[in-house]
Amino acid sequence: MTQPLITQLQAALGADQVLMDPVAQAPYLKDWRGRYQGRALAVVLPQTTDQVADVARRCVAANTPIVPQGGNTGLCGGATPDQSGLSVVVCMTHMNRIREVDARNFSITAEAGATLDDLKAAADAVNRLYPLTLGAGHQSTLGGTLSTNAGGLQVLRYGMTRDLCLGLEVVLPDGTVWSKLAGLRKDNTGFDLKQWFIGAEGTLGLITAATMKLYPKPAARALIWLDLPDVNEAVRAHERAQSVFAGAQTAAELISVPTLALVRRHLPSATLPMGASWPASADRWALMIEVSGNDTAFLDALLDGWRRACERDGKAHGLLATREADQQALWAVRKGLAEAQKREGLSIKHDIGLPISQIPQFIDEASVALENAYPGIRIVAFGHIGDGNLHYNLSYADPLANAALLAKSGEANAIVYDVVSRLGGSIAAEHGIGQLKTDWLEAHAPEGSIALMQKLKTLLDPKGLMNPGKVLGARK
Amino acid sequence: MTQPLITQLQAALGADQVLMDPVAQAPYLKDWRGRYQGRALAVVLPQTTDQVADVARRCVAANTPIVPQGGNTGLCGGATPDQSGLSVVVCMTHMNRIREVDARNFSITAEAGATLDDLKAAADAVNRLYPLTLGAGHQSTLGGTLSTNAGGLQVLRYGMTRDLCLGLEVVLPDGTVWSKLAGLRKDNTGFDLKQWFIGAEGTLGLITAATMKLYPKPAARALIWLDLPDVNEAVRAHERAQSVFAGAQTAAELISVPTLALVRRHLPSATLPMGASWPASADRWALMIEVSGNDTAFLDALLDGWRRACERDGKAHGLLATREADQQALWAVRKGLAEAQKREGLSIKHDIGLPISQIPQFIDEASVALENAYPGIRIVAFGHIGDGNLHYNLSYADPLANAALLAKSGEANAIVYDVVSRLGGSIAAEHGIGQLKTDWLEAHAPEGSIALMQKLKTLLDPKGLMNPGKVLGARK
Repeated sequence: MTQPLITQLQAALGADQVLMDPVAQAPYLKDWRGRYQGRALAVVLPQTTDQVADVARRCVAANTPIVPQGGNTGLCGGATPDQSGLSVVVCMTHMNRIREVDARNFSITAEAGATLDDLKAAADAVNRLYPLTLGAGHQSTLGGTLSTNAGGLQVLRYGMTRDLCLGLEVVLPDGTVWSKLAGLRKDNTGFDLKQWFIGAEGTLGLITAATMKLYPKPAARALIWLDLPDVNEAVRAHERAQSVFAGAQTAAELISVPTLALVRRHLPSATLPMGASWPASADRWALMIEVSGNDTAFLDALLDGWRRACERDGKAHGLLATREADQQALWAVRKGLAEAQKREGLSIKHDIGLPISQIPQFIDEASVALENAYPGIRIVAFGHIGDGNLHYNLSYADPLANAALLAKSGEANAIVYDVVSRLGGSIAAEHGIGQLKTDWLEAHAPEGSIALMQKLKTLLDPKGLMNPGKVLGARK
Repeated sequence: MTQPLITQLQAALGADQVLMDPVAQAPYLKDWRGRYQGRALAVVLPQTTDQVADVARRCVAANTPIVPQGGNTGLCGGATPDQSGLSVVVCMTHMNRIREVDARNFSITAEAGATLDDLKAAADAVNRLYPLTLGAGHQSTLGGTLSTNAGGLQVLRYGMTRDLCLGLEVVLPDGTVWSKLAGLRKDNTGFDLKQWFIGAEGTLGLITAATMKLYPKPAARALIWLDLPDVNEAVRAHERAQSVFAGAQTAAELISVPTLALVRRHLPSATLPMGASWPASADRWALMIEVSGNDTAFLDALLDGWRRACERDGKAHGLLATREADQQALWAVRKGLAEAQKREGLSIKHDIGLPISQIPQFIDEASVALENAYPGIRIVAFGHIGDGNLHYNLSYADPLANAALLAKSGEANAIVYDVVSRLGGSIAAEHGIGQLKTDWLEAHAPEGSIALMQKLKTLLDPKGLMNPGKVLGARK
């Protein structure tokens, strides 16, 4: 007679790696922003790839859904189980070994539960950089960032998580292990299978380990702060910066003045360095451009080139922050945006991708449409201009008006996504689909896309047990 | 009653786009190196995506295999039909429009038959760079380079063709068109379907158009020529160069002295500039490092950094070529390798990927194993050290001995690939599998890989009519 699944999992992993107690389970059942709350049959914490495979085989044999989870820092509920209480959450954080650092190959192999900070520390120890930079780097895991193809602050130079991945080890829904952890930059041996699993948000299998690119660690940095009259000037300034700095440019962050106002209100210690003033009117935009290099002589040459290019175009060159303390003051403003928004209260959030050339048009059209629908609405817009990625959040300063707006969030989403789609953009640039955007994906995906995704899903996971309801919605 | 397929194709495309005459067909039936010669029912030259879709539908309805072809510059026979004479070759070269150049978004959208030179010219016209650089750029097409995930000279800085692709339009084997030509750098809306078709060598569908990344056009370049005692020193020099130059380094080309000897013999006009001497002994290696930037002041700062780093490490800084003419002389040596080898005669070629850190070990082990098996064998090794990609070609100077060696090429392949596999490398780094390496892929693919590839193949192409016998071999 077959043992109950829980008994099997306890026997396979040890009872202390199978959490049954509601209090012990609680942190794994709620997403970190508190938007989703699920239930689970069990939360398991495997320590090896074999244990993950064992769990997958047993769950699938028992027709039990599996919800893979990393650091639980996703923003779309992709790692939170549903309310049924029938799923097993497989949390990877106990599988966090750095398996190999190959400095000479500029690569690192680590397990899915290693955090971004773990990876950065291991790289740093051999004078290398693991570039992926997110706010929650102490908690976000390698597996989670691969499953969501996370982006962040330095995509302009180093790419998305997908671009950093050289090799992958995956437990497939049938419990077999597919592994190709090669540290190869060129490898055209048939279909590139790792691409299937990157960005699939755990719906096709469980990523257990990966080989990732490392980069030379920049020894010197400079930061330029530009105060610009409109977003069109920001796009032009970015274009100029790319021409001057090319591969030495490591960030291009755009921030609207209403966004800066939240920082100034909630984080009063945030100030601009070098005696600079905050932008004078609400329709202006700040642009932060970071350049990195091996030494200050190199940066000086870059900044000279920047001054000359600005002079040629008749534009101000902005604040040139070469001292570490001044740069930190500027980054504190950028990195304070999340906290300032949180303190201000809830808002309707959008994570939008656009062709860079369409950003000014989007800003114009979306604000007109929103102002028509919601007079006096506050638009908090910022993002990674070099990646065409805007975070575009809507709220009212007045709490009552804001509550009314939040109740109509689907309507506001539709206004924003309509403009995004018309301009050839994406409704989910770097945070993914999870359970938050499955309907929006269905509405905006190109013809045939969902059917192709569904075909691969059914091929690999015929019972529909891998993270059901995520990305592709409630269908099997 | 159903019309014969040829009559249908002539009606759909016009008779002049359906080549039936053996003389007219000939250039499409033979790969450019003359290694493969096939036959075809017809060669068709569609001009629109709809025509490609129409051809696919009609061929599949008639159970007729389709062989997609671009500029026919592949090196593994992936675009050459088999001997059966039952296939329709679909050559994309008449579908070569540049659909859109978006300078501000650093992107270009073009049809599959556009050549690399077409793309470079269109980019250049708006002061942008399309970086993919191959020897046959006047002939290699966008579709062909996507289907083979082509690499080339500047992968270190700009990546493989896969890394340059932002969006794709594909005719699926069922004749439907899947299109997502978005110029987006961040787009996490479900599975990244374009990845399935890139590098699939036409076995999953016909790529008809793509949106590709553009880069700022560097205004200034410098080239460093290093003459090094062994390949280990070359790996160290590359490591030093990466630390100093980071994103400003655009090439790192390694060349063995026996390889240089072929250039000197067959291209006597090739000389080293600035009074430099050729390396003095056959076990030395040349390393070429290119850096690019916006102006010469920037390059001067970089080269100063390089001199200091070399001094610190007690190494020679090499020949620093800042004048255009001197750089051209050095590039003429590198770019003459293909022609020099061709003039020397046939050889057994390998296109190998390795972790950069394993290159010295590979060079040692493979040369010992080969020398044991074939005393006095000549190894012509060169490649892209920053990508871990070696071209590793075997021959004898003596024509009779060489003919005997070529007759045993499978045995020599096995010796090389055995070392490659043990060191975690790839048997096909940038040229792909085609029909040349299907057995080697089968022998060296990680467990389960071929089965997963075959599953997707069967899913999209249940009749096995898309480029049969390529990548996955003769099975359906």
